[in-house]
Amino acid sequence: MELQRIAVLGAGSWGTTFAKVLADAGRDVVLWARRPEVADEITNHKLNTGYLPGIRLPETLRATADPLLALDGAEAVVLAVPSQTLRANLAAWRELLPEGATLVSLAKGIELGTGKRMSEVVAEVAQVPAEQVAVVSGPNLAREIAAQQPTATVIACTDHERAVAVQRASANGYFRPYTITDVVGCELGGACKNVIALACGIAHGLGFGDNTMASLITRGLAETARLGAALGADPLTFAGLAGLGDLVATCASPLSRNRSFGERLGKGETLAQAQEATHGQVAEGVKSCSSIRTLGELHGVDMPITDGVHRVCHDSLNPRQMAAELLGRAQKAER
Amino acid sequence: MELQRIAVLGAGSWGTTFAKVLADAGRDVVLWARRPEVADEITNHKLNTGYLPGIRLPETLRATADPLLALDGAEAVVLAVPSQTLRANLAAWRELLPEGATLVSLAKGIELGTGKRMSEVVAEVAQVPAEQVAVVSGPNLAREIAAQQPTATVIACTDHERAVAVQRASANGYFRPYTITDVVGCELGGACKNVIALACGIAHGLGFGDNTMASLITRGLAETARLGAALGADPLTFAGLAGLGDLVATCASPLSRNRSFGERLGKGETLAQAQEATHGQVAEGVKSCSSIRTLGELHGVDMPITDGVHRVCHDSLNPRQMAAELLGRAQKAER
Repeated sequence: MELQRIAVLGAGSWGTTFAKVLADAGRDVVLWARRPEVADEITNHKLNTGYLPGIRLPETLRATADPLLALDGAEAVVLAVPSQTLRANLAAWRELLPEGATLVSLAKGIELGTGKRMSEVVAEVAQVPAEQVAVVSGPNLAREIAAQQPTATVIACTDHERAVAVQRASANGYFRPYTITDVVGCELGGACKNVIALACGIAHGLGFGDNTMASLITRGLAETARLGAALGADPLTFAGLAGLGDLVATCASPLSRNRSFGERLGKGETLAQAQEATHGQVAEGVKSCSSIRTLGELHGVDMPITDGVHRVCHDSLNPRQMAAELLGRAQKAER
Repeated sequence: MELQRIAVLGAGSWGTTFAKVLADAGRDVVLWARRPEVADEITNHKLNTGYLPGIRLPETLRATADPLLALDGAEAVVLAVPSQTLRANLAAWRELLPEGATLVSLAKGIELGTGKRMSEVVAEVAQVPAEQVAVVSGPNLAREIAAQQPTATVIACTDHERAVAVQRASANGYFRPYTITDVVGCELGGACKNVIALACGIAHGLGFGDNTMASLITRGLAETARLGAALGADPLTFAGLAGLGDLVATCASPLSRNRSFGERLGKGETLAQAQEATHGQVAEGVKSCSSIRTLGELHGVDMPITDGVHRVCHDSLNPRQMAAELLGRAQKAER
């Protein structure tokens, strides 16, 4: 399976960066941007100043605001639109998708209302079998990859050969993809990390340092892995790039929206105050902590950190009280 | 098994901090310091200004420069001296160790020359069975624990009941220990993390950001787990506090000696220049990368990051070349 002609749908920072990765790996890439002026700037000036200021895009990269032109003849279609709008966008493109094309999801999150993972949404809306959908995850701070800093990533697909084809299509001198077949674990890692990043932000806001952050990352990953096991994921996925790797990059980065939102809560702001300070934007983890907590309850999985974050966000629990409760739990074996 | 009377041998920052943890958990602790003036300051002023400036020690904590006084009647003996001097120190104390006392090692590292883990050295020199030796590891930046920031830790002992006794003796409002029985994995995690922290420092010195660090942490932990599996450890230990937790705390902390030493190498200093700048001190990872690499070769385990660090430190490999080689390896599945 050779993927040469590739469409990337969505010209935000991660979509544009992934299009650059593919073009730098020698692929024919056409990037779809919603706004024609963004497509023009990319095609004619090799820049996307709104999302990737200062980054020079590859000469071979073209963009268009017409999805038909982007999709025409594509052997792979990369979906790089926000999680909660993926369903509506994809429904509009469904008739244009080339038969048999590999669909690659870059979106991280759990769909509100349905509780579905992004690859489930893709397979359902595009009406393709699950093995035709691949997922990219890992430590993916777009700006750093766009600056060609060395990064390892995971390509997950239940069809191993298809994962290998996406791997071959994207590997280049600064981007090193590994394949796995555990799509469930890969997507769950990406969704849960936002909640743990919120917890790390809260701890930082309370004035705690690197031990506390490392403890929250480790125990947060342990509860993610417990949930994953209940949902059929391989626990080892969470020790890999889509679990640990993504989580560490997010929690360590001062650029992370979830971490800095959590910091505001840790410093004593209410949810409403933090939201006002971030121009009405709520960090993704604030929404997903509730749906992940519900998922845990449904499967009888103990998720103390997710529960604590939920109660700080939605039940006015004092963050200092959350820390005391996490430490005051019954003494246990590590697993 | 109740551990009430405890000796802590070694009044450096980690030994003093762990003595405080135990005293704050309500134990009778006597701390041995090599220098009488340090013992005096701890006993009379509840301070150890040389190692923990600004930290008020518990009222109940006593210290002495006489090992016999510290060990008299101790039900547990905590060994908090540097890895490479543990053998000689313990040999001098052997006759004074109370019969049947639980020996607790805080030292992290692999003994030079013998390739032995610290608990192996303890059992050998003290002439006790392995199940009488427990190991403490995890995200343990002493200064943060001394400041009572919330931290989770692992107590490893092949005798589970003994691990539980140490857990009960040390748990308090800011220190949350978990038990495991995988001593090999616990100690290997502590030794290998220094090498990976060096690699993260090198990457940082080259100007790379959080994705690269997260990728190195994840893939570094993967090669540690491969070595661990070959040596009989449980791979899941490396996803826990003594693996991931310790590693993240070390790599994230600007206080880490290994990380900052690596930064110098990444910026182009030679080993000799970096050593001169750090007053002749060589980071622990510089030594252990060679012994761990040898261990990997002996067991046929592929350890590309450890190998790269070894070659940068000891074979004059250019750090930028190391990065290029790590990315240029054959494409693989994640595990």
